[in-house]
Amino acid sequence: MLIDSMYPKSFASDNHAGVHPVILEAIAAANHGDAPAYGDDSWTAAFEDKIKEVFGPAAQGFAVLNGAGANLVGLAPTVGRHNSILCADGAHIATGETGASERLLGVKLVTIPTEDGKLRPDDIRSSLSVVGNPHAPQPTVVSISQVTEVGTCYTHEEIAGLAEAAHEAKLWLHMDGARLANAAAYLDCDLKAITTDAGVDVFSFGGTKNGALAAEAVVILDASLATSLQYLRRQSLQLASKMRFVSAQLSALLTDDLWRKSASHANRMAARLAAGIADVPGASLAYPVQSNAVFVALPHAVAETLKSRYLFHYWDEPAGVVRWMTAFDTTPEHVDDFLDDIRKAAIA
Amino acid sequence: MLIDSMYPKSFASDNHAGVHPVILEAIAAANHGDAPAYGDDSWTAAFEDKIKEVFGPAAQGFAVLNGAGANLVGLAPTVGRHNSILCADGAHIATGETGASERLLGVKLVTIPTEDGKLRPDDIRSSLSVVGNPHAPQPTVVSISQVTEVGTCYTHEEIAGLAEAAHEAKLWLHMDGARLANAAAYLDCDLKAITTDAGVDVFSFGGTKNGALAAEAVVILDASLATSLQYLRRQSLQLASKMRFVSAQLSALLTDDLWRKSASHANRMAARLAAGIADVPGASLAYPVQSNAVFVALPHAVAETLKSRYLFHYWDEPAGVVRWMTAFDTTPEHVDDFLDDIRKAAIA
Amino acid sequence: MLIDSMYPKSFASDNHAGVHPVILEAIAAANHGDAPAYGDDSWTAAFEDKIKEVFGPAAQGFAVLNGAGANLVGLAPTVGRHNSILCADGAHIATGETGASERLLGVKLVTIPTEDGKLRPDDIRSSLSVVGNPHAPQPTVVSISQVTEVGTCYTHEEIAGLAEAAHEAKLWLHMDGARLANAAAYLDCDLKAITTDAGVDVFSFGGTKNGALAAEAVVILDASLATSLQYLRRQSLQLASKMRFVSAQLSALLTDDLWRKSASHANRMAARLAAGIADVPGASLAYPVQSNAVFVALPHAVAETLKSRYLFHYWDEPAGVVRWMTAFDTTPEHVDDFLDDIRKAAIA
Amino acid sequence: MLIDSMYPKSFASDNHAGVHPVILEAIAAANHGDAPAYGDDSWTAAFEDKIKEVFGPAAQGFAVLNGAGANLVGLAPTVGRHNSILCADGAHIATGETGASERLLGVKLVTIPTEDGKLRPDDIRSSLSVVGNPHAPQPTVVSISQVTEVGTCYTHEEIAGLAEAAHEAKLWLHMDGARLANAAAYLDCDLKAITTDAGVDVFSFGGTKNGALAAEAVVILDASLATSLQYLRRQSLQLASKMRFVSAQLSALLTDDLWRKSASHANRMAARLAAGIADVPGASLAYPVQSNAVFVALPHAVAETLKSRYLFHYWDEPAGVVRWMTAFDTTPEHVDDFLDDIRKAAIA
Repeated sequence: MLIDSMYPKSFASDNHAGVHPVILEAIAAANHGDAPAYGDDSWTAAFEDKIKEVFGPAAQGFAVLNGAGANLVGLAPTVGRHNSILCADGAHIATGETGASERLLGVKLVTIPTEDGKLRPDDIRSSLSVVGNPHAPQPTVVSISQVTEVGTCYTHEEIAGLAEAAHEAKLWLHMDGARLANAAAYLDCDLKAITTDAGVDVFSFGGTKNGALAAEAVVILDASLATSLQYLRRQSLQLASKMRFVSAQLSALLTDDLWRKSASHANRMAARLAAGIADVPGASLAYPVQSNAVFVALPHAVAETLKSRYLFHYWDEPAGVVRWMTAFDTTPEHVDDFLDDIRKAAIA
Repeated sequence: MLIDSMYPKSFASDNHAGVHPVILEAIAAANHGDAPAYGDDSWTAAFEDKIKEVFGPAAQGFAVLNGAGANLVGLAPTVGRHNSILCADGAHIATGETGASERLLGVKLVTIPTEDGKLRPDDIRSSLSVVGNPHAPQPTVVSISQVTEVGTCYTHEEIAGLAEAAHEAKLWLHMDGARLANAAAYLDCDLKAITTDAGVDVFSFGGTKNGALAAEAVVILDASLATSLQYLRRQSLQLASKMRFVSAQLSALLTDDLWRKSASHANRMAARLAAGIADVPGASLAYPVQSNAVFVALPHAVAETLKSRYLFHYWDEPAGVVRWMTAFDTTPEHVDDFLDDIRKAAIA
Repeated sequence: MLIDSMYPKSFASDNHAGVHPVILEAIAAANHGDAPAYGDDSWTAAFEDKIKEVFGPAAQGFAVLNGAGANLVGLAPTVGRHNSILCADGAHIATGETGASERLLGVKLVTIPTEDGKLRPDDIRSSLSVVGNPHAPQPTVVSISQVTEVGTCYTHEEIAGLAEAAHEAKLWLHMDGARLANAAAYLDCDLKAITTDAGVDVFSFGGTKNGALAAEAVVILDASLATSLQYLRRQSLQLASKMRFVSAQLSALLTDDLWRKSASHANRMAARLAAGIADVPGASLAYPVQSNAVFVALPHAVAETLKSRYLFHYWDEPAGVVRWMTAFDTTPEHVDDFLDDIRKAAIA
Repeated sequence: MLIDSMYPKSFASDNHAGVHPVILEAIAAANHGDAPAYGDDSWTAAFEDKIKEVFGPAAQGFAVLNGAGANLVGLAPTVGRHNSILCADGAHIATGETGASERLLGVKLVTIPTEDGKLRPDDIRSSLSVVGNPHAPQPTVVSISQVTEVGTCYTHEEIAGLAEAAHEAKLWLHMDGARLANAAAYLDCDLKAITTDAGVDVFSFGGTKNGALAAEAVVILDASLATSLQYLRRQSLQLASKMRFVSAQLSALLTDDLWRKSASHANRMAARLAAGIADVPGASLAYPVQSNAVFVALPHAVAETLKSRYLFHYWDEPAGVVRWMTAFDTTPEHVDDFLDDIRKAAIA
């Protein structure tokens, strides 16, 4: 158990940050009188309208409680018992959710090696040799992460290419958008451009890593996937009884571009950190910095020195790669102080 | 979609109420600086200490997100693939969770008819004829609800009797304590008396129906059930990343007996409503009122008249039984106004 | 462990009988040279043709290994993760398969009480109140057993009525036909009359209880259910590698009406046993005898005396009801000797 | 659909062969009078004794219906819901069973790349970094295949080394022994030497690929894994009602070393085929030949020519590797004729 206050600003995770004040106010504002439970309330209706406003009229939003839940609930209607999910081998669904897909959906994740966390259309095409083979589960969905697990972003064109390859093979395209806001901020586009307009069929829009308390949205663009969703969400333990407080968080994020302001800020802090690394002896970026994540290869001793004073994780300890995350509340001073300590550790 | 503000105080569910101000303050107070994610924070440590303080040193608390999640996660370590759960036929796990137990645990619920929502030791004994039969799943746990789904409470002695019968047969005793606070308030005992001291092995302690935003605890008393719990909680989508905000809610409930104050108040409002029903022509209590639930048999026309103006649910529409719930924020005026309308509808 | 030869002819189960000589010959005849595995062989092609010949051109047959497997594989495409199966409370899938439906399909069985093992259209209609309720799994299939678990048969009209009620509600009708042959023999109709012609969508045709070694067929009549079946069969461990030997058994049963000859004989032996019971003091039929099963209420002491000498099971021990099964190889002498011993025990 | 008789002896699979005459005789011999169903018969008792005789007194044998079933049932007691299975990336459970482990057990297979189909102790050790990480399923079993999927064999010492590494980490060692007989024949040891004596905890002993009709055994050596097995077998659709006919096949295989005679013969035929390949231009062995499998790299045109006349599969079509299997009934003439055709195709 950590004594939280012992440490300076955490670079371990955007989940270490608290709740954005505007979102906390939205929660408090929703605490007014009664509201029907399980989503039959006006806050949830407003959230659902916001989703259509942002992602287009075909978009159906379903609020859920956390990122793993958003992935599970979004993927559930895309796979029957005999199906499989194609994804990158570093995909969060494959590596960070305690086997929830295998356990709760009962399906195989067919994982594909990548250099930069990103799948290519040919990865889909070369996974189709099992189609029709009764000894292999049949793929029905490709799941990509935007931002990827190594902090990189798919462009609109890259996503559209994957959607085309997936649809040609009658597969759906799913996007784990836990950091979708950071991607849109980096790409300087709106959220719709890299989801609806790129041919994605179902995705999650993450709130928690971007300043919410606990709120994510599953967004369905292919209506055939939506009919079972309310049941699957409830069964998968992702339906809040006092739903208004979840919906209010998501609406707040989607109002006045709060999502973009927070994500852009976090991205800028990551860029500042990455820029500062450039002249640190022995340190080098392990992946391009395209979001609020900075992956750095460091001498082990330097990493250990820093870990004694800062919260962050190894990404690949044998390779000496660490992951540093920024958040909506990371300040330039946080970054600069950290850089100072990094330089001192590197020189020592 | 309902326009929330169209209705007077809801009697449909304790989930229609908002968040108790003290709990909302606790959330705001936790929004201070960084905290490690997924429960490695000091708020969660404090919650875990509170659980030991309230339920005894053997008690291990695990914070989760909702009631169905608390049941699922608490039951998960008690059943292997070839096992079954014994429960009342009206149990929430059997009737209100979209088959989550069958789907996420893959086990059969062996449901037992009851008069008053309560199992008896003989129900357990007479369910044991399948033991050793390879064509039947083998029971390993008895699940009871305290408060039951029809608003009744088990006494300490009744629970202890069930625990004894269960343990004799090498079964665990699980308690769905979504309204455990209301039971302890009704029985005028502490929470430990009807859990730890009565021989319960694992139970949930509900927060959401008692003024929390979204917070429940799974409490393990048999340490052998705890070793896998952190993995099962994560896999079952019930681990919050910003856990401090869940833990803070539960700690607030367990501080200065807030749980009891809120539950006692709600119980009193239910008693007031039940007392007022006594002289309503054609209306009668369907179950003893022992918590914050009032089940009333009413002429169908009366129920329909009331439903046009108030939010509440039929419990058994063919039998003309409705369910009215009170909450921490139900006032005597709410009850009296409702009673006025009930009387008017009954006479009309 | 029983010494098999200690006992006279078993009345415990049609599974206690061996393999019909014609079927064993068919197995031996298939043991000639090589054959492609997993069903790409000419014996399996012949079986598939037989299924079309017997059940009509829309029928698609899939050979499997046992009765529980046939039910599981046949039901699998009818239920998604959020669905439920409606069935009689005594249904084999609910009582005799170790929770395989809950475990392997992850769905709830909604069990309906019956007097005679048979569902009625109103049972379906009154189960539909949960439709649209997100807290309840949504029913998509009704499963009936023909012969039922208490030896009774649905008429063509009864099945057609159930199919109509199911289809009106957009549910499929599934039939557990482990003893379908006995039903058609009793009803003096062909197999198609009580399956295809009655509106059944998917059913099993049992071989093992009617003289096969280990062979059952899943038959699909609604083509939309067939597309995933080869994958579901393989995944559910019901695809034999040396499939020709399974297919050959089923083809033998379906050739020259062997299925009817064997089933009619077994039915006649049950009728003979039932007729003989008429004058046994204290004994009475618990259910009408419409197949190869005789359910008899007997004084407990009489049952116990008989059990010391014969193999059979109690059906409902507290009620004093035993179940006696006949098989293709039960002879009139077996029955008459058994009746003699029953009478002696009853008089003693 | 293939016309079986169009082809010469198949080299596609040992499953293309029929039933060994001795085993078919054993089936016929068991078809005598009645026998209790589901394994309470004397043939099954004899099989269970045979297992103890061959694998030692601690060995408990459970007869099942096919190889995927044997793997599933044997692995089931080794993994809870939050666990994972470590295996080679080419393991049959990972590549050839339509995701049955993920679907029916709900667990993740953590697949490890290998050069020769064989895991090493270091593969186990380096997979343990997830232990204690709540975001990762916890490994509890290592599954190896003997013979491996590329026809290689683990030595006694190699297995013992894996058992030691597994047990140090409190993992069980499981062996997929679909071709265990071929391994013991190749290694010239008894079956116990490479299972019981090497520290394996649970394994399958394959019959079907070695001349049985449909019969495999799950053998448990760690008694703690056996208590739930009868339920798991039934639930997993792997319990035959007329079990005597499965048990009789396995007993026949284990009598008078029939298993070894058949497997040794098949191995010799593979060795003969491999030897003959040596002087075929352009052809080379892709893996050492240590069983009844011959993996050969061939020019694509040669493979295609041969495929037009013989039944066999590509193993890795892009790499030009084909797999040729021999069986108990492959003759030297079959091999020599095939070699003639291979040579002709290679020269053409």
